[in-house]
Amino acid sequence: MQVLRYREGAYHEEEISVESISSRTSFNEDYDVTWIRVTGLGDTALLEQLGEKFHIHMLALEGIVNTMQRPKFEDYGAYFFVVLKSIHSWEQEENIPISQVSMLVGEKIVITFEEKEEFFFHAVWERVVSNKGLIRKKKADFLAYSLVDAIVDSYFSVLEKLGEELEQLEERLIYDPDKEAIHAIHRMKRQMLQLRRALWPLREVIGNMERGVTSLIHSTTTVYLRDVYDHVIDMLDVIENYREMLSGMLDIYLSSVSNRMNEIMKVLTVISTIFIPLTFITSLYGMNFIFMPELKYQWAYPAVLGVMLLISLAMILFFWRKKWL
Amino acid sequence: MQVLRYREGAYHEEEISVESISSRTSFNEDYDVTWIRVTGLGDTALLEQLGEKFHIHMLALEGIVNTMQRPKFEDYGAYFFVVLKSIHSWEQEENIPISQVSMLVGEKIVITFEEKEEFFFHAVWERVVSNKGLIRKKKADFLAYSLVDAIVDSYFSVLEKLGEELEQLEERLIYDPDKEAIHAIHRMKRQMLQLRRALWPLREVIGNMERGVTSLIHSTTTVYLRDVYDHVIDMLDVIENYREMLSGMLDIYLSSVSNRMNEIMKVLTVISTIFIPLTFITSLYGMNFIFMPELKYQWAYPAVLGVMLLISLAMILFFWRKKWL
Amino acid sequence: MQVLRYREGAYHEEEISVESISSRTSFNEDYDVTWIRVTGLGDTALLEQLGEKFHIHMLALEGIVNTMQRPKFEDYGAYFFVVLKSIHSWEQEENIPISQVSMLVGEKIVITFEEKEEFFFHAVWERVVSNKGLIRKKKADFLAYSLVDAIVDSYFSVLEKLGEELEQLEERLIYDPDKEAIHAIHRMKRQMLQLRRALWPLREVIGNMERGVTSLIHSTTTVYLRDVYDHVIDMLDVIENYREMLSGMLDIYLSSVSNRMNEIMKVLTVISTIFIPLTFITSLYGMNFIFMPELKYQWAYPAVLGVMLLISLAMILFFWRKKWL
Amino acid sequence: MQVLRYREGAYHEEEISVESISSRTSFNEDYDVTWIRVTGLGDTALLEQLGEKFHIHMLALEGIVNTMQRPKFEDYGAYFFVVLKSIHSWEQEENIPISQVSMLVGEKIVITFEEKEEFFFHAVWERVVSNKGLIRKKKADFLAYSLVDAIVDSYFSVLEKLGEELEQLEERLIYDPDKEAIHAIHRMKRQMLQLRRALWPLREVIGNMERGVTSLIHSTTTVYLRDVYDHVIDMLDVIENYREMLSGMLDIYLSSVSNRMNEIMKVLTVISTIFIPLTFITSLYGMNFIFMPELKYQWAYPAVLGVMLLISLAMILFFWRKKWL
Amino acid sequence: MQVLRYREGAYHEEEISVESISSRTSFNEDYDVTWIRVTGLGDTALLEQLGEKFHIHMLALEGIVNTMQRPKFEDYGAYFFVVLKSIHSWEQEENIPISQVSMLVGEKIVITFEEKEEFFFHAVWERVVSNKGLIRKKKADFLAYSLVDAIVDSYFSVLEKLGEELEQLEERLIYDPDKEAIHAIHRMKRQMLQLRRALWPLREVIGNMERGVTSLIHSTTTVYLRDVYDHVIDMLDVIENYREMLSGMLDIYLSSVSNRMNEIMKVLTVISTIFIPLTFITSLYGMNFIFMPELKYQWAYPAVLGVMLLISLAMILFFWRKKWL
Repeated sequence: MQVLRYREGAYHEEEISVESISSRTSFNEDYDVTWIRVTGLGDTALLEQLGEKFHIHMLALEGIVNTMQRPKFEDYGAYFFVVLKSIHSWEQEENIPISQVSMLVGEKIVITFEEKEEFFFHAVWERVVSNKGLIRKKKADFLAYSLVDAIVDSYFSVLEKLGEELEQLEERLIYDPDKEAIHAIHRMKRQMLQLRRALWPLREVIGNMERGVTSLIHSTTTVYLRDVYDHVIDMLDVIENYREMLSGMLDIYLSSVSNRMNEIMKVLTVISTIFIPLTFITSLYGMNFIFMPELKYQWAYPAVLGVMLLISLAMILFFWRKKWL
Repeated sequence: MQVLRYREGAYHEEEISVESISSRTSFNEDYDVTWIRVTGLGDTALLEQLGEKFHIHMLALEGIVNTMQRPKFEDYGAYFFVVLKSIHSWEQEENIPISQVSMLVGEKIVITFEEKEEFFFHAVWERVVSNKGLIRKKKADFLAYSLVDAIVDSYFSVLEKLGEELEQLEERLIYDPDKEAIHAIHRMKRQMLQLRRALWPLREVIGNMERGVTSLIHSTTTVYLRDVYDHVIDMLDVIENYREMLSGMLDIYLSSVSNRMNEIMKVLTVISTIFIPLTFITSLYGMNFIFMPELKYQWAYPAVLGVMLLISLAMILFFWRKKWL
Repeated sequence: MQVLRYREGAYHEEEISVESISSRTSFNEDYDVTWIRVTGLGDTALLEQLGEKFHIHMLALEGIVNTMQRPKFEDYGAYFFVVLKSIHSWEQEENIPISQVSMLVGEKIVITFEEKEEFFFHAVWERVVSNKGLIRKKKADFLAYSLVDAIVDSYFSVLEKLGEELEQLEERLIYDPDKEAIHAIHRMKRQMLQLRRALWPLREVIGNMERGVTSLIHSTTTVYLRDVYDHVIDMLDVIENYREMLSGMLDIYLSSVSNRMNEIMKVLTVISTIFIPLTFITSLYGMNFIFMPELKYQWAYPAVLGVMLLISLAMILFFWRKKWL
Repeated sequence: MQVLRYREGAYHEEEISVESISSRTSFNEDYDVTWIRVTGLGDTALLEQLGEKFHIHMLALEGIVNTMQRPKFEDYGAYFFVVLKSIHSWEQEENIPISQVSMLVGEKIVITFEEKEEFFFHAVWERVVSNKGLIRKKKADFLAYSLVDAIVDSYFSVLEKLGEELEQLEERLIYDPDKEAIHAIHRMKRQMLQLRRALWPLREVIGNMERGVTSLIHSTTTVYLRDVYDHVIDMLDVIENYREMLSGMLDIYLSSVSNRMNEIMKVLTVISTIFIPLTFITSLYGMNFIFMPELKYQWAYPAVLGVMLLISLAMILFFWRKKWL
Repeated sequence: MQVLRYREGAYHEEEISVESISSRTSFNEDYDVTWIRVTGLGDTALLEQLGEKFHIHMLALEGIVNTMQRPKFEDYGAYFFVVLKSIHSWEQEENIPISQVSMLVGEKIVITFEEKEEFFFHAVWERVVSNKGLIRKKKADFLAYSLVDAIVDSYFSVLEKLGEELEQLEERLIYDPDKEAIHAIHRMKRQMLQLRRALWPLREVIGNMERGVTSLIHSTTTVYLRDVYDHVIDMLDVIENYREMLSGMLDIYLSSVSNRMNEIMKVLTVISTIFIPLTFITSLYGMNFIFMPELKYQWAYPAVLGVMLLISLAMILFFWRKKWL
């Protein structure tokens, strides 16, 4: 549990143990904003003590621990509670690793709970410490915005990777469709579902924060949240596009598979249809009847060969005309 | 018909027979909340007497008995009426066993009607008796919430089981698709429909309870109902995801079936196409014409064998290049 | 044209001819409600006279006769006009027989126009005459409700029959799909469309009646209409479910057809692929070359038989491994 | 350019040349309604002069000429502007011939612009001249309604023809599906798209006229417009039904094509699989090995024939059991 | 960076370097409207100086540079910010070249930022300079409208080209479907997605401008924006239609591919099924059994030939009846 307190002119970093929470009387003396960062959700004792100390509603505490829920926004008056989903580094694995981040935002305090340590949060922490940008000049609501923004940015890189993979897959489909392609399409479809499932409610969450459901967010921060909101809408739009492209690619794949089958069928037909009658003729003169007058004529053999040649040519011509060759 | 009456400090359990209902003058003396639990819907006499005793509207009484309807919420002023669907234990049967639970909630009374005995309700009963959690400190509306929550929780375990089955099915589809898979996909699709049909109107029911349509639910209970509402939304979301995954799996299945067919076709084509011309040549020299000069040359037989070998090799090369092998 | 007048204590049945309408000065003397029941829409003279007598708007009169329209609700101030669709007995015919019923409801009068005689209306008539239920105690709006309820009930039995047929069809599809199944699926899809087309606007019609668009419906009747409304929603829900199940069954059918084809292909492939090389060998030694040393060795014949046996076994093993057998 | 002026008691027909427009001071002296009917949109000089004379907004003038737009309604205060699409006679051509009609409606004047001469408008003209119905008793807004009604009616006959064709197509699909059917389905799908594209915004246009967006339409005309509105809704409903039926028919077609293929495959399989082993046996005893003891036994030939008969029967039995025959 | 200042009577063209921006005190002296046109987004120094000079919000400056976002409208009080997408010349390439244009519109100033030089903007510039139309008589909001209108027009030509291509593709599909067609369908589907993605939010942007979200747009300009809005709606409608037609074409393609396969299968079946039994008979009499009495009869050979002829005829008749020929 790390604590970062700051105002425009100063900041203070601290590592606090579970035991010392209750003994502390105040977290905000001398500073504008206090950011308490809890990493890992396993320590229920810590959560309970925090809950007691900061009067957190039981349902919010449950929401922090339950990682199976969708992103959501809840206003408890003196503070609001936000559940978000973030993506860590992802390297074409079957499933996109999504972890949960929750945030309690009060007048002068932000408490974050990370299922896994969020590298995106380090960057925000660093920005406060090094006094980059506007963050030290603003209040707790701007810190909350910066954290949400950091999480939303984490989706961009994954979407970009998926976009590149999609283009490669599309080219492969056109020039060389194989059995693996269908599984790749299926996998990407699932990943799109995963992303959409994480982003769709995020849209609503940020919308709630922006539209002034809570009085804790000042109007000067609203314009920034609107920008993040637009980013989320953009990404949802991209995801919808990717999904439609994947559907199109499935059609392409299935039709190229059936085209290939057709080509094979044609070869089979052509070869069979040419040789079956010829083989019949040869086996006709392979019969052992004693009275087969043709067998005795000297010109019979070349004549049969000629007839067979004619039949083959006629058939090739027929197939040529039918465009089966 | 079991009756449980309680206030913060005390509780009273009772089994009441149909006959004694009318003779009782009051159910609430000395207690804050009275929970009357009716199990089984076959006893119409009981229902009628309850209806008379508590002035229940005829349509609500009909709603209790008619198990073909969707979950619904109806406000009758002095009480409100809720129809819900619950799931009992489910073990991969064809249909998910869904039964009906209805509830009449008044100022100080909750009457529940269970089609089949609900084990989830035992747990709530137990919580009242053993004074666990907040339930004894709160009023009838909190009891109603607790019962709805118990029912909603009954869906979670089924959804989880279905999720596991889905993943197994998906793996099986990729590595070893068989004829049964399509029926499994179809069965799960139906089960998703069943669940969605039960959950979708539940969303509205809980929404109605939460949004203050009735004055019988206090604002302190609203926040709990909002939490249950979020759970239902989450589950509907999961169901939608599962349905999309099942559609994707159907595509996978169909394409793997057609892939398999292609592979078989290729083998047939290759073997046929190689042997059909060879067999023609052999049967050519099987003809019984008297004047076939080739038959007499000593080198003719090995020459024909050589020609056939060349033809086979050329064809194998052709197929190799076409990637049919 | 039959007329039924009633109040709580009394009723009066009458058959009135077209000619006598205009001569009557009042229909309501001494009674609370007058129900005029017109069967068959062919008699335009009757309609015109009724229109004049009761000041019915020209567009409402047109609406009564035009049976091609959707159910609709129109408020004309002193009365409201409702067009409904009812289903008569249906016995698995290609199309569900749907006929039109329209209703004009005023303060103390209900005029019904039936395209075909509605047996469901007889039951309501009977209930008035025999003073069953609440109907005699209530006013014209309750009669209107009772008639709408009777019509909505007519859909239930058809839906139930279709549901049973659907289940039978589904079983047949899994155990023994045949050519007729696809036509049955198609037929049921059309019937679902028919039902939905009749029910969907009904929802709106009853919604309009219930939500107090007209002042002619009293608040005590509203709760009954809400119940009918819920029934319609339930049925629409069932229809949507059936439609999704039918789509699923189409998938099942198509995949089982293609499975069957695969099985046939496999048999063909296996038999062909085993015998084609064997036949080549036999026909090789059927050639008539003079110098074929093998032909003269005594062990040649059994050796060739042995080789052929080995080839067959190798192939069967190959197919076994590929799971084509 | 034809002009028709009328009041309840009188009317005046006139043909006016482009030149005389500007010299006229008033069009409405002595009459309630003036209907100016312009046929053909090529004469830009005429349009400009009309625009100047009646103070028509530049964008409305552009809207009259631009025939690529959707139906729309625009309120310019002193008048409103309506763009509509009408259908002329249609005889199963590839595309449904849709032409544009625009209308400017003021307090006492209606100006119509027809891309092609509308026969439906002749009927309205005739009704004014012969004083049939209510039209002469009403004002300009009723004339506007009558024209819109005439246009909406033009869709009915086309929809009816398409409905008949659809039924014929459906029967043909079930009893004798051929290659042309798919093109017919596709053509009708396109025609449905065309109709929907013309009707969908019409709904909105009439809705705007009816819902009192403009004060130029009196409340007595509103009820008539609501009736036209209902007609449009009905037709859109029918179109949606037809589209769903066409989708169903495509499924039917594809499945019957694949059924037919299956049947052909079965015949091939059965004949091949019966004869391939038999042919192998015969070609076995066609080998020319010197030491083949069987060849010398007198009973060998009938024995082989018997064996072949047994094999055939066994196979036929196998196929019979598999239901492939 | 070009600057154009104008009022009704005069205009002034100027090329301004980055350095001179800050030294200028005012841009608007003596003129009503100032249009600053920035081409290329690479020069961040220029953007920063402009931002400082005109007090542009940081998020708007970011929005100008970030070309990955969707069209959007943002109101900053003293000015509003619009991001649009335009299409340059397009010649059937794989992707439609879409570039970004952003616009800052204040009371008396319009600043445009073009990713690539927009030829459509030259035309507007020219119209100001040559005083064509209303543009010089109006204010900055009309200039903004004219620029948006120019961009929307750029979509029309592309949509028209795509429409023509679609029709050609459709004809090709019916008369001569080939492998390329599926890729053309897929490419056009993607292009439709691209266009829709650019146009869909444009609808909202123009809607925001028109509906008076900002006070900078006067009511006289609103009617023009409504016209552009209708154009966008029309185009979206056309795109939806094209998409549905493309889906239909995919169905056509797939079914014609499967039809073609069927025809090939039929030929194979017929030829195989005729010759396989005949070849069996010939190979039967090719057996070398010593005791085959038939071989010795003089009439045996013609008899066998006759039998084979009969079998062929019977089979041809059978196929004829089955309509397989």
